[in-house]
Amino acid sequence: ATEGPCNTPKPGVFDLISKAKWDAWNALGSLPKETARQNYVDLVSSLSSSLKSSGQLEPGADGTPPGYETLVVTSEDGITKITLNRPTKKNAMNTQMYHEITLALEAASKDNSSITVLTGSGDYYSSGNDLTNFTDIPSGGVEEKAKNSAILLRNFVGCFIDFPKPLIAVVNGPAVGIAVTTLGLFDAVYSTDRATFHTPFSHLGLSPEGCSSYTFPKIMSPSKAAEMLIFGKKLTAREACTQGLVTEVFPDGTFQKEVWTRLKAYAKLPANAMRISKEVIRNKEKEKLHAVNAEECSVLQERWLSDECMNAVVSFLSRKAKL
Amino acid sequence: ATEGPCNTPKPGVFDLISKAKWDAWNALGSLPKETARQNYVDLVSSLSSSLKSSGQLEPGADGTPPGYETLVVTSEDGITKITLNRPTKKNAMNTQMYHEITLALEAASKDNSSITVLTGSGDYYSSGNDLTNFTDIPSGGVEEKAKNSAILLRNFVGCFIDFPKPLIAVVNGPAVGIAVTTLGLFDAVYSTDRATFHTPFSHLGLSPEGCSSYTFPKIMSPSKAAEMLIFGKKLTAREACTQGLVTEVFPDGTFQKEVWTRLKAYAKLPANAMRISKEVIRNKEKEKLHAVNAEECSVLQERWLSDECMNAVVSFLSRKAKL
Amino acid sequence: ATEGPCNTPKPGVFDLISKAKWDAWNALGSLPKETARQNYVDLVSSLSSSLKSSGQLEPGADGTPPGYETLVVTSEDGITKITLNRPTKKNAMNTQMYHEITLALEAASKDNSSITVLTGSGDYYSSGNDLTNFTDIPSGGVEEKAKNSAILLRNFVGCFIDFPKPLIAVVNGPAVGIAVTTLGLFDAVYSTDRATFHTPFSHLGLSPEGCSSYTFPKIMSPSKAAEMLIFGKKLTAREACTQGLVTEVFPDGTFQKEVWTRLKAYAKLPANAMRISKEVIRNKEKEKLHAVNAEECSVLQERWLSDECMNAVVSFLSRKAKL
Repeated sequence: ATEGPCNTPKPGVFDLISKAKWDAWNALGSLPKETARQNYVDLVSSLSSSLKSSGQLEPGADGTPPGYETLVVTSEDGITKITLNRPTKKNAMNTQMYHEITLALEAASKDNSSITVLTGSGDYYSSGNDLTNFTDIPSGGVEEKAKNSAILLRNFVGCFIDFPKPLIAVVNGPAVGIAVTTLGLFDAVYSTDRATFHTPFSHLGLSPEGCSSYTFPKIMSPSKAAEMLIFGKKLTAREACTQGLVTEVFPDGTFQKEVWTRLKAYAKLPANAMRISKEVIRNKEKEKLHAVNAEECSVLQERWLSDECMNAVVSFLSRKAKL
Repeated sequence: ATEGPCNTPKPGVFDLISKAKWDAWNALGSLPKETARQNYVDLVSSLSSSLKSSGQLEPGADGTPPGYETLVVTSEDGITKITLNRPTKKNAMNTQMYHEITLALEAASKDNSSITVLTGSGDYYSSGNDLTNFTDIPSGGVEEKAKNSAILLRNFVGCFIDFPKPLIAVVNGPAVGIAVTTLGLFDAVYSTDRATFHTPFSHLGLSPEGCSSYTFPKIMSPSKAAEMLIFGKKLTAREACTQGLVTEVFPDGTFQKEVWTRLKAYAKLPANAMRISKEVIRNKEKEKLHAVNAEECSVLQERWLSDECMNAVVSFLSRKAKL
Repeated sequence: ATEGPCNTPKPGVFDLISKAKWDAWNALGSLPKETARQNYVDLVSSLSSSLKSSGQLEPGADGTPPGYETLVVTSEDGITKITLNRPTKKNAMNTQMYHEITLALEAASKDNSSITVLTGSGDYYSSGNDLTNFTDIPSGGVEEKAKNSAILLRNFVGCFIDFPKPLIAVVNGPAVGIAVTTLGLFDAVYSTDRATFHTPFSHLGLSPEGCSSYTFPKIMSPSKAAEMLIFGKKLTAREACTQGLVTEVFPDGTFQKEVWTRLKAYAKLPANAMRISKEVIRNKEKEKLHAVNAEECSVLQERWLSDECMNAVVSFLSRKAKL
């Protein structure tokens, strides 16, 4: 129960589900609410058993960071580069990727690089939250699942708020949901002209996260932020740049070359001055951003349990099952 | 004593006044201040007796809302549409219209529509505050009039701050004064390319309202806001869009068709999700907006009694009388 | 140790220094920190003795303001015009100019003009902080120098925050550093298309001032502000206008004519209304702006003593000495 559905247009996982189950789901409208919710749990639980349990990532016993399964992290020329590396899944963020990004940001904040870059491998920057995160219902039921998800999301976004060095997004393709909203917390967002920016929260019965309810009305005008966050308008890269969400757009053909030339020049600037300039700017808002993050996650925790959200998931799954 | 003068370029009401009176007013510069103010009261009072007293709108005795005299309100396809309906007066807002808009917003907030739209009938969106509001001087004199007007304005703007559903302006033509400043409180502003946006406060000896002293510097850059609010620069629809006050501009020929197609699609989105997303965004500012509104009305209450404002009214009336 | 170095590309003062000294400085990397700092003091002190001591500007004994040495101030048509008048130094701001601008703004706030204009003589608006400010090391050493400079800067910026009338920048050419950041405190910024806007703080080991760490992320989007303030990106006049820092750009050939026609019209508007409208807008932020100003100066006071800043100065001086 998240924005996952439209982020991962063809999730193979649902191929596991029989057509018959979907027909049953299609009839949900006539069921009492408690039965519907139990059916929802049964469905997503039946899915989770067929999924590889990835578990939570633990640091190595010797204190060294583990290898990343969902990321590639490199560091050279004063730049630490974190690459989302699930290209066959359009870099959808599963629970493991949330954890690994948190760990990679933590490590980058302490290494000797001057700036940190987040980008994606393959055609997408990131399709946002991965639907499969919500098929693993714990024994506490959907309420516990929603609570755990809110904690996960809050910690994840908190790392972007607190990141102490210049943080730059190299948006190599379409971005959806949480991959869009967190851009408001970067110091520069460079985008290929092939990218799009989409936050279909209302379509999924959800509400804004990533501090976007606060940063987007500041970045763009409030009514243009509302078009994205309330009405789910998808922006092209050029539109996103005009409205301030993207710092600069480059032709796809020369995107990587132009951006990395620039980033290498930035990385040669005095590192402490950059860090302190960012601190002077960010400190004014840090407390506010954490409060916004906490409130957004608290509201989402309820939204994930709402009829509107569950109906959106069912509707999405039904469409997929019929394909 | 309000922005009315330049909002209603040819108010027929002043045709009632003889040329002789205007000549007397033109000599005001040489009168002591108290005499000038008393003359001001005499003049506007003499006007009020010839005007139909519209009185304050009361709810029907049976609790059902009364018919509106200055609005047309309809509700279909999940959209409640409030149309300002004084086209022969360029939808200038008289006291009754202020009250009726307040009532219509109150009703729309509770009906089963998903979104609410404000628009104008005829060629104008609204020419702003109606001059005739200020010809009805109560027994307490201009001070009481200013006080009552400040209360009216504060309550009116407060309804826009608190409105709980997505609120969309369909700006079908020129907008002036309060009809412009309140746009900063909408969730989307769609405009015909024929519209203009004008807030000539300084020209009238007045100061900003509708929370524009706070919202405009956020929406556009502070210096572009100052050009509108301090220097009274009039914007075209395209300029207003570039600066973020308008969300999108449409060619006049296809304006209504394109906008309503979009609005009907928006109205099909999950209503609670939209309401809650708006709430998450707006709640961060609600307290601040109410404080700004109160302060702006308090400053205006004094400005209405200032020499600069009264002189602007006299100057305007003199020009009209000479036509 | 300030942004001066790159603001004044060919400061004749350094011609006084022998090539041998620069070679010694080039070897600084291998010296212990205290020795390096003492060498730094010796170098800039040796420079100061060969400079004319301008002293602090004192009001005349009879209470009348003194003539200005670095400014030309005129007042007509309701406009007080303050012209930076060191054209051969690209209107770089030396200590005396900081003081004189403060005095001129103080006087303008009390005269009978409606609006106040700041502009530059010659080709530049202002190349920012003058390097020679930092060659006059007091007996307390660089620490005392940094403290005094922070106080000077804080008072200077404070005058812009508190200025009560509409304040307009007529940007007649390139602007650098403090001449750029203070633009965020003006009510309108009109620029020739020949101007550029450059804040190379990181290049010099420094951090933002003039309240830009707060105003720039409001004026433009936060990531576009970061490009300027953290990465030192130089903007053209058109770019600065698109991003909201400049209110309007004019072709250089008609710049003065068009701007002054407009300003004379503005100056005819009711003066109290303009002052009060500005007050309503500014009062919401005045306390915040003063806090930001204090914090920025406090951080800069440390930055001026940092290795990064001193190295940037040495590197700049070395390049100059080799020319």
